[in-house]
Amino acid sequence: MQKPYVPSVNLSVINARLERITTIQQVLIDQIRVMETMTTLDFMEFRDFLVPASGFQSVQFRLVEATLGIKPHHRMEVEKQFFISRLNTQDRARLAEAESKVSIFELLEAWLSRMPFGQYEDYDFWSEYSAAVAKMLDQDFKIISSNPGLDERMRAMELKNLEMTRETFITLLDGEKFSALYEQGKVKLTQKAMLSAVFIFLYRDYPALQMPFKILNSLVEVDEKFTTWRYRHAIMVQRILGAKIGTGGSSGHEYLKSTTERNRVFLDLFHLATYLIPKEMIPQLPPAVKSQLDIVYDSSRL
Amino acid sequence: MQKPYVPSVNLSVINARLERITTIQQVLIDQIRVMETMTTLDFMEFRDFLVPASGFQSVQFRLVEATLGIKPHHRMEVEKQFFISRLNTQDRARLAEAESKVSIFELLEAWLSRMPFGQYEDYDFWSEYSAAVAKMLDQDFKIISSNPGLDERMRAMELKNLEMTRETFITLLDGEKFSALYEQGKVKLTQKAMLSAVFIFLYRDYPALQMPFKILNSLVEVDEKFTTWRYRHAIMVQRILGAKIGTGGSSGHEYLKSTTERNRVFLDLFHLATYLIPKEMIPQLPPAVKSQLDIVYDSSRL
Amino acid sequence: MQKPYVPSVNLSVINARLERITTIQQVLIDQIRVMETMTTLDFMEFRDFLVPASGFQSVQFRLVEATLGIKPHHRMEVEKQFFISRLNTQDRARLAEAESKVSIFELLEAWLSRMPFGQYEDYDFWSEYSAAVAKMLDQDFKIISSNPGLDERMRAMELKNLEMTRETFITLLDGEKFSALYEQGKVKLTQKAMLSAVFIFLYRDYPALQMPFKILNSLVEVDEKFTTWRYRHAIMVQRILGAKIGTGGSSGHEYLKSTTERNRVFLDLFHLATYLIPKEMIPQLPPAVKSQLDIVYDSSRL
Amino acid sequence: MQKPYVPSVNLSVINARLERITTIQQVLIDQIRVMETMTTLDFMEFRDFLVPASGFQSVQFRLVEATLGIKPHHRMEVEKQFFISRLNTQDRARLAEAESKVSIFELLEAWLSRMPFGQYEDYDFWSEYSAAVAKMLDQDFKIISSNPGLDERMRAMELKNLEMTRETFITLLDGEKFSALYEQGKVKLTQKAMLSAVFIFLYRDYPALQMPFKILNSLVEVDEKFTTWRYRHAIMVQRILGAKIGTGGSSGHEYLKSTTERNRVFLDLFHLATYLIPKEMIPQLPPAVKSQLDIVYDSSRL
Repeated sequence: MQKPYVPSVNLSVINARLERITTIQQVLIDQIRVMETMTTLDFMEFRDFLVPASGFQSVQFRLVEATLGIKPHHRMEVEKQFFISRLNTQDRARLAEAESKVSIFELLEAWLSRMPFGQYEDYDFWSEYSAAVAKMLDQDFKIISSNPGLDERMRAMELKNLEMTRETFITLLDGEKFSALYEQGKVKLTQKAMLSAVFIFLYRDYPALQMPFKILNSLVEVDEKFTTWRYRHAIMVQRILGAKIGTGGSSGHEYLKSTTERNRVFLDLFHLATYLIPKEMIPQLPPAVKSQLDIVYDSSRL
Repeated sequence: MQKPYVPSVNLSVINARLERITTIQQVLIDQIRVMETMTTLDFMEFRDFLVPASGFQSVQFRLVEATLGIKPHHRMEVEKQFFISRLNTQDRARLAEAESKVSIFELLEAWLSRMPFGQYEDYDFWSEYSAAVAKMLDQDFKIISSNPGLDERMRAMELKNLEMTRETFITLLDGEKFSALYEQGKVKLTQKAMLSAVFIFLYRDYPALQMPFKILNSLVEVDEKFTTWRYRHAIMVQRILGAKIGTGGSSGHEYLKSTTERNRVFLDLFHLATYLIPKEMIPQLPPAVKSQLDIVYDSSRL
Repeated sequence: MQKPYVPSVNLSVINARLERITTIQQVLIDQIRVMETMTTLDFMEFRDFLVPASGFQSVQFRLVEATLGIKPHHRMEVEKQFFISRLNTQDRARLAEAESKVSIFELLEAWLSRMPFGQYEDYDFWSEYSAAVAKMLDQDFKIISSNPGLDERMRAMELKNLEMTRETFITLLDGEKFSALYEQGKVKLTQKAMLSAVFIFLYRDYPALQMPFKILNSLVEVDEKFTTWRYRHAIMVQRILGAKIGTGGSSGHEYLKSTTERNRVFLDLFHLATYLIPKEMIPQLPPAVKSQLDIVYDSSRL
Repeated sequence: MQKPYVPSVNLSVINARLERITTIQQVLIDQIRVMETMTTLDFMEFRDFLVPASGFQSVQFRLVEATLGIKPHHRMEVEKQFFISRLNTQDRARLAEAESKVSIFELLEAWLSRMPFGQYEDYDFWSEYSAAVAKMLDQDFKIISSNPGLDERMRAMELKNLEMTRETFITLLDGEKFSALYEQGKVKLTQKAMLSAVFIFLYRDYPALQMPFKILNSLVEVDEKFTTWRYRHAIMVQRILGAKIGTGGSSGHEYLKSTTERNRVFLDLFHLATYLIPKEMIPQLPPAVKSQLDIVYDSSRL
């Protein structure tokens, strides 16, 4: 994806590799069950031999995180002190090198940013989308306002939620507001990249977008499997150690749990569902745009 | 797929539905574990209430098989007598109706048969492919002939296998030989449909073929999950019943095992790997053909 | 377990039932994958028909929670308002009835409390255990104090952790301190029940304790599977809805996530690992005590 | 189990180890999915580098089989020639050594054979069991004879099955008939061992037999996971290779499939369900026998 243009055949290979990665991740998750066959009593017998090392210090784990896109400024201060400070000089250098390279996240950002979708000479897709969103939200407003099953407190709450949803859409489409979010670190993708991703999600069924859609989904899957691994690992540690301290002096479970949801690289992709709208409200693309996304065979031959 | 032309967007929906089906099948397989929590002793307590009914007589199971593509002439005589004869009149009528409808297999056959791939005015794809196959087999012949690690008996055996492989390829490309196989019931797809499927497998990475490829794979998956369900069910019955007779007077396990591998509807698709050749030997398609399969963006914009 | 005495044969049945329950729970978790085959676009199409109902209002779900041991005072105020207030009169009555019955948690408490383990006329097990714990902690103290791989900050932190661990053990064995924890709602089991559970965990390999140990483990498993279901359900909702509001006006994901870890009934059992000590430090039971736990065959016959 | 007496605490460790083994086997099965992410085209690219080696020649695989209990005389002649003849001298010696050691199967046979269950001075358990079996079969005979839902052909078939079942039970209890089966290789366990296993299955809920029961079940599980691995491996090979020959000149899939069900070491345990009878018909053990299997607490203390 570093090249200016990725041939569509290569997208297929990229996705196949990502699917292999998530398959491997699933095996890594499943094999936690093997560690779980070890009882606390088994573990206590050799625990002392591990001090002061700790599984949290695995440099390989950090290398994978860095390759995906976690940079030093994403990590909590305590995390850096606690783990990275314990690496030896050579491993620190390896990690620094991995962190300085272009990450998968950065490749994704560049690829999405240069996509041509949504920008057409005589068709303003995003104002069509904006109109569709407004229509959807007005409809929701009516449903909530007139729903006899809601008492006043619930109705007020739902209407407040609706306004928040409206604000979310406005932010997506407003360059300045989105930049503000980006500056605050609340999103990681730029608006340009985000809009391409939304377009891909909306029109995923066209041949040109099927593989990009699968790639976005596979990246979310990589993230989720990482999260699931951390969660299952934390549960395993708690079950074996209880509230005891781990080797390496870490109060195991609590730390692990705090990192379960953090360090997600592709969270913006995970949240894409936020920007979808009902199928029948999605703007119909004009034929000229459609033809760029579709492959149509001469029906007389089919 | 009954229509003369399936828009590419619809292929995506078809595949999504097939993937939902295999996901449901996986749940059906997994829940056999719930039945397995029942011990033999538990089962023996209520077994007598089930006689003479038997799980094999489920009409829904037969309806699903019929919808996929199993016709009465595919079933063993004993199977028909044993199960179908026990259905009540109404269920027999429902089954007959399902068997008379166009099955998913028939839709697949029609769809693959009308595909234009491989037929080009001034490009004879299949002779290119045939040449590539010959080259591959000649190379294999040299490897086997000169391999010092093989003793004479093994070498002879491998050469014999190689000749069988060559015969397999020749049959695929020879209309008459293929028809003979078809008449004998050794393949279920016609040559025309089979060739389209091979083409899709070879060039699966092009946008136009990604979704057709996924559909073929999903159908194989449906078949495999069915087989796995039958296998796991047979093992469960054997574990609970031992060599005892089942309710309904069926000597449970043996019967079940015999149907595990039979009744596979999409076996031809499962065997497609037979016709693949190494990546670097696959014929390069001429630009005119390629452009029908690919979507290329103006690289100055990307 | 309501009876004054549970024959050992019945324990086996109890455990078999619990294992069936966790097997069923696993299927319930797995079938979330079927719901995940539904895309946001699919869901948006029928979402409006569900308003204002919401999955959170399932009365069956609440009945299961109540049967396990969740009483009204365990629920957050917002939870009660939000969901229970929406139930109809009949369902509210059913729930109230379930909440007033003896729960599985209460049966467990009663069963563990009346167990005779650890109380012997002329053998004070718990002071033996206490001595073993002190020895283990002293050993840990020496390891941390003399470990050259720890810098002063880390050493201080580990020693602080060690003191916390010591305090945890002291609290377990001190009736008053434990009661204080109990009053604060930080533990749900009484000290008497907790000590029986610790004893079972330590001597789980004796025939008399194998089944009680398995039952405790199965209850932890029931809890964990519930937690996993909530977690997977929350992830699914986030993936399908994004940051959108759910039907029923609940801001789906956030609420679901907040309940993932709460509402665990058997958390005390999950924490039992806290009180284990290395195998070679576990007190050797005197023969008279051992003979109550073991079945020894005349070795001349074996 | 080589010792004349296995303390009950050790049985627990044996079973924990077996459960770890089946957990590891499950991971081995699951990671076939990783291999499946490799397409035929991927495999074809490096296939030639593997010739003439083949996965079937793994000496470790044979060592595991030998440790479980497969001896040279259990293997098909073709299997021996095909794989074992290809091992180098050192590996052949290692395999021969493993095959000459006492296998897990032999340890099991010895352990079951020396068990005292069923042999009591003044209580002939096996004639009680025999009477219960006769009663069960007579009852089945009546049900089949009087069942109006069966036509004459089905009734005849079911009665024939019933006679076969009766014969199976008679053979179990008749030393000479059982020996004949054993000589023919149709069972691998001796009658003495088989009867102990049946006793354990019938009275599994007693504390003394819970762990032996679990061990028998875990051994069946080891066998089944092996079978499942072979089956999944065969399917994977077929999917990747099609009908092509594998590396090493083996016509991959067919060979693999033929070994899927063979080479099961603990098949006799798998078939134990054959000898079970409904719970209410199982002979009540006299108090003296019961007390050897149970641990009863002074109910005044509980």
